[in-house]
Amino acid sequence: MNPLLASIEPSLIRALNARKRPSSIDLGLGEPALPPQQRFIDAAARESAERGLKYTLNAGDPELRALIARRYAYPGLSDARNVCVTNGSQEALYVVMKTLLDPARDEMLVVEPAYPAYVKIAQLEGIAVRPVGLSPADGFRYDVPAIVAALRPATRLIVLGSPANPTGRVLTRGASRELAAALSARAGAPVWILFDEVYRELTYVDDAGSPAADYPYTIVVNGLSKSNALTGLRLGWTIAPAPLCDELTKVHAWVTTAASTFSQRVARAIFSEPGALEEQAAWYRTQRAGVLTALRDSGLTAVEPDGAFYTCVQLPAGTDSVAAAYRLVDEHDVVAIPGRTFGATLEGWLRLSWVAPLDAFREGLARIARAALV
Amino acid sequence: MNPLLASIEPSLIRALNARKRPSSIDLGLGEPALPPQQRFIDAAARESAERGLKYTLNAGDPELRALIARRYAYPGLSDARNVCVTNGSQEALYVVMKTLLDPARDEMLVVEPAYPAYVKIAQLEGIAVRPVGLSPADGFRYDVPAIVAALRPATRLIVLGSPANPTGRVLTRGASRELAAALSARAGAPVWILFDEVYRELTYVDDAGSPAADYPYTIVVNGLSKSNALTGLRLGWTIAPAPLCDELTKVHAWVTTAASTFSQRVARAIFSEPGALEEQAAWYRTQRAGVLTALRDSGLTAVEPDGAFYTCVQLPAGTDSVAAAYRLVDEHDVVAIPGRTFGATLEGWLRLSWVAPLDAFREGLARIARAALV
Repeated sequence: MNPLLASIEPSLIRALNARKRPSSIDLGLGEPALPPQQRFIDAAARESAERGLKYTLNAGDPELRALIARRYAYPGLSDARNVCVTNGSQEALYVVMKTLLDPARDEMLVVEPAYPAYVKIAQLEGIAVRPVGLSPADGFRYDVPAIVAALRPATRLIVLGSPANPTGRVLTRGASRELAAALSARAGAPVWILFDEVYRELTYVDDAGSPAADYPYTIVVNGLSKSNALTGLRLGWTIAPAPLCDELTKVHAWVTTAASTFSQRVARAIFSEPGALEEQAAWYRTQRAGVLTALRDSGLTAVEPDGAFYTCVQLPAGTDSVAAAYRLVDEHDVVAIPGRTFGATLEGWLRLSWVAPLDAFREGLARIARAALV
Repeated sequence: MNPLLASIEPSLIRALNARKRPSSIDLGLGEPALPPQQRFIDAAARESAERGLKYTLNAGDPELRALIARRYAYPGLSDARNVCVTNGSQEALYVVMKTLLDPARDEMLVVEPAYPAYVKIAQLEGIAVRPVGLSPADGFRYDVPAIVAALRPATRLIVLGSPANPTGRVLTRGASRELAAALSARAGAPVWILFDEVYRELTYVDDAGSPAADYPYTIVVNGLSKSNALTGLRLGWTIAPAPLCDELTKVHAWVTTAASTFSQRVARAIFSEPGALEEQAAWYRTQRAGVLTALRDSGLTAVEPDGAFYTCVQLPAGTDSVAAAYRLVDEHDVVAIPGRTFGATLEGWLRLSWVAPLDAFREGLARIARAALV
């Protein structure tokens, strides 16, 4: 067996979900509760009736790639050649890390709290990870000096998500420029940024930035899972400088050949209809207003999300987040994800998603508040 | 960059395809020309309207997994827990090799002529490959003594496909039993068999065997691409002993999360309708009869396929297969794949697919015969 597998712990989230009951208030969900826009699925089914379901090119349908590149129009990255379509943004993350880093020499910096897959993929590839923790005292805001101070000579990649899972924090335009300036000023081989913007369409503040606008060594990862309630479509992509995109495509080709042609047709239909990509964001904006009120009413210390559909709430000092999450599901019938899952800096916190109806979210918060005070 | 990437040559097949003209007779295709069974795509679209498109479990929809396991009913492998659903059989191959082998110690035996991805994936993972070549003199039939003689102490995995791409040869029931007996008799850690049966439904002989029926250390890989003309669906699976299946699922989860829920619904509909999986095989059986006649008429030395939709034809002694393939496309407007792509033993041959209309196949053969004699 591959010895790297032994280093990967079983998923805590899965273990918790296994204890969920039908009656449970589920604030652990990592996917939208809205239905997807069926018209795009029907369009793809009709197209399949006419044209079958053959392979696309490894990098994806050129028309879809051009639509994606033009939609985001990042400087130097606005051509079809800059896009590789993947089986979900998870495969995009995997392919980028595998392509860009030499496990024998390179180190990856993960800005935590962070989506656990960043570290898990690195473990699977034998890539050394250095975590840098954002501060609870600062509400886990992106702290560029702390990120830059954590760089080492071996660091070749910084992974950061914005809006972030689990905190909902965004990298502001100012912070993105500050980071770009600091990295550009460094001597030696460039440090790349892997910018995970899978929650991009669910942004509720005006000053969100992107390193892809500021820094040429940026690789963007995104997908339709969150914006369009299509987690089950497995449709993601990377946007990268063309020579690197060719290398990413080579790895992608041997890992999965290509993304689903059906899923790519759904995506082409979405990208071809103005407004379709951001249509569901309105629901989240309304929901967020209710969530902010509920958080204030709860008396809990919480992160007010700039984006995505999560918040993090603080447990009483000294509380073990994993033990608390087990107690919550077993004794209070609420599913919440322990902060430790997202890095040491979020220990003592829980991640809550707010895709459930607002009443359920309020009731869940009330149970957490009661349980936490015991 | 990951230094393993540099060892992977660009795809010859892609380079050849780039020279194809609209007028070309394309005998290079690696996918069915039939349309898929649209009723299953429509059924999945209707189900999505009712239930959305959320994630399945990492290993796939339990109902689909059970249907797959029961359909093949291999001894000890007939339960849902034995199946992990993947983004195409390509991801299945990737995940199996990555999970099972330690690149620092283990070696993989590839029985050639072989689908090029087996070696490419190993190169991407840094896994040592030992090729064992089947003999042209024997029509590339599976030669168990040759395979067993090629084993080394470090060999932990034998990869073989049946029906094989590119030769169409099957592993007979007798050869499968002979291989199982030889491997079982060996001392030390078991040697696993990765059995790629993605062309299984397209078998035209009665004595095809499977190591999964004979040998407990077998992992089966399959998918809907070829049987149901659904290459663009990206729906494959592995069938393996349950403890190994859990490890495969762990790797699969971090590489791509899960297979497309839409694709899994199409698969569930196919597996639920008796006869749907083998419905298209009738067309290939009829086509094969015409192909055999055309091959005999052509005067070329050819492999008569036991399965799949390929044949291999021999070039005059000393001909370089890559140069011949370029000359064929550029001067004779016929696309054929050079044998060298599939291993050294097939150098001097071309792989032809016969999914094109029979007239086109005949005309392509005639042009190859004329060109080869010049």
